Amino acid sequence: MMPDEIRPVFLKDDAVMMLDQRLLPGREVYLEFTSAQAVSDAIRDMVVRGAPAIGVAAAMGLAVSVPASAEDPDTFDTAFEGACRIIAAARPTAINLSWAVNRMRGVYQAHKARGVPAVREALRQESQAVMDEDIGMNRAIGKHGGALIPDGANVMTHCNAGALATGGYGTALGVIRGAREAGRKVKVFSCETRPYLQGARLTSWELVRDGFDVTLITDNAAGHLMATGAIDCIVVGSDRTAANGDVANKIGTYTHAVLAHRHGIPFYVAIPTSTLDMDCPDGSHIPIEERPKEEVLGFGGQRVAAEGVEVRNPAFDVTPWQLVTAIITERGVHRAGPDGYDFRI
Amino acid sequence: MMPDEIRPVFLKDDAVMMLDQRLLPGREVYLEFTSAQAVSDAIRDMVVRGAPAIGVAAAMGLAVSVPASAEDPDTFDTAFEGACRIIAAARPTAINLSWAVNRMRGVYQAHKARGVPAVREALRQESQAVMDEDIGMNRAIGKHGGALIPDGANVMTHCNAGALATGGYGTALGVIRGAREAGRKVKVFSCETRPYLQGARLTSWELVRDGFDVTLITDNAAGHLMATGAIDCIVVGSDRTAANGDVANKIGTYTHAVLAHRHGIPFYVAIPTSTLDMDCPDGSHIPIEERPKEEVLGFGGQRVAAEGVEVRNPAFDVTPWQLVTAIITERGVHRAGPDGYDFRI
Repeated sequence: MMPDEIRPVFLKDDAVMMLDQRLLPGREVYLEFTSAQAVSDAIRDMVVRGAPAIGVAAAMGLAVSVPASAEDPDTFDTAFEGACRIIAAARPTAINLSWAVNRMRGVYQAHKARGVPAVREALRQESQAVMDEDIGMNRAIGKHGGALIPDGANVMTHCNAGALATGGYGTALGVIRGAREAGRKVKVFSCETRPYLQGARLTSWELVRDGFDVTLITDNAAGHLMATGAIDCIVVGSDRTAANGDVANKIGTYTHAVLAHRHGIPFYVAIPTSTLDMDCPDGSHIPIEERPKEEVLGFGGQRVAAEGVEVRNPAFDVTPWQLVTAIITERGVHRAGPDGYDFRI
Repeated sequence: MMPDEIRPVFLKDDAVMMLDQRLLPGREVYLEFTSAQAVSDAIRDMVVRGAPAIGVAAAMGLAVSVPASAEDPDTFDTAFEGACRIIAAARPTAINLSWAVNRMRGVYQAHKARGVPAVREALRQESQAVMDEDIGMNRAIGKHGGALIPDGANVMTHCNAGALATGGYGTALGVIRGAREAGRKVKVFSCETRPYLQGARLTSWELVRDGFDVTLITDNAAGHLMATGAIDCIVVGSDRTAANGDVANKIGTYTHAVLAHRHGIPFYVAIPTSTLDMDCPDGSHIPIEERPKEEVLGFGGQRVAAEGVEVRNPAFDVTPWQLVTAIITERGVHRAGPDGYDFRI
């Protein structure tokens, strides 16, 4: 694959293929999934992660899980709805999951009278469209957001909101790619992002592969670097953004936003509108997933923590809109008014 | 050893014994050192860490490195001064290192006319006094600081400022121990403290061993927990505190202080006065050590980061005095005036 073409999820014949992100950067292994349960498990187990990529995986998972034939329409409906519920329950925070499931439900309802083969084909095409549109939105995000990045900037990011987290190209990393495509020189600081180390393993991998100058730091070092003038701006993604612009994103994002605010450093959030939850008035309504304690007790199966400790492992946090300089979507650059963001067209 | 008696450094015959903190919590191994160079290497390689413990190790290292006989006084002087320089150069940030070396230099000068055996004995006694006084100061810190911790408090700490980081008992963990000795119930949140994981490996180990309720969190989770009311106060140590109360401590401390300030959570720093650098007017003059990039590229000796990344690995940061609610020393609880802290008696 060429650097521009990292694809974490794609359809191949009757299967969903996923690049196993648990093995990166050491090994590039693609796994094949053919049922809703298997796709749901893969999402929960972090074979694929990142809100838009989870949305693509959910859509493709539903496309391949529809049986090739059905004895009667009721059984077919029940099976499809069961698959929807199994996939929607994989993880709680990313809104793209339910967004994609609802979109596929609509296609199913619109086409089911046409018979099984037609529904299967419509779902397949729709899931491919979810991916293609996501990449298109990310390129637009990159163009809008890239214009915000000054030439020669030191840009910090957290977790991985890159090609690996989306259909392709990336949201936050799409902005960085967009800046480079607009002719600007960019140096990236990648926070390692404990506990799952998406910054060390994934963002570093995809940006080095793409020829960027990448410096890896611990999450702890971000404050010192901001205080000493080493960071010019920050760009991150989001797993769910509320109607007022409150941003749920990988644990640690809120901390970076508070630090950026103190130091007058622009803090940008890059999302496709599929990540907006207009039914959610503010961040207090966003469910925050707690992940297994093993992620904190060690890494890669190797235990480092002392025996006998308890663990809290919230996977996301909420950054209030007041700390977000701008939210970049495929529609453009949004700025908050006195009462928050307004994403209505 | 009983829980109250964790001793990271002590004298045994003609050797300095150190608990190898690199192997904790998996294994408790004591190593023996008999020369200034070996002690300096052990400090640099993190066999022992923590500013007060480094001070004790430096003093004991000088005590055991004096030869049993000397052909002429000039050679003896040169050897002692060489040992002082080797030990003082081990690490740059902790002020206790040069403080202990200067104290031992004074004893050497005061006793050298009395002959080699007398100097050796005086240095040995002085190094033991450095340790005993440190423990005494920590118990006083625990008494003063413990009174600041409310009953039932959730107390967060960063890195390890415990028995393992001092002669014994600890500074920040001394405050937590002091609160318990005063009859208060305390629940501890230990930040894992990347990259070296002192919180996961050392603080958790020594507090679980001592019967505390300890919850381990990633450094990233601290902001979310503070924002959601899970943390009542924070107490940390320091590797060097400037005359105005600017605090150099383990990387990530500044971030916690900024978050605590935003959320109105008391942020306490516990230090013996040996950690005060009255010659340093403010934090901008404190040298910040950069540690090897391997600490960031991997986790517990296992490489996890993508190939081709650069690394920045500052080991400390500086928290400005304005963010510090109080500084607790063996003398009592210090509060800042309008121009900072004033530690003069």
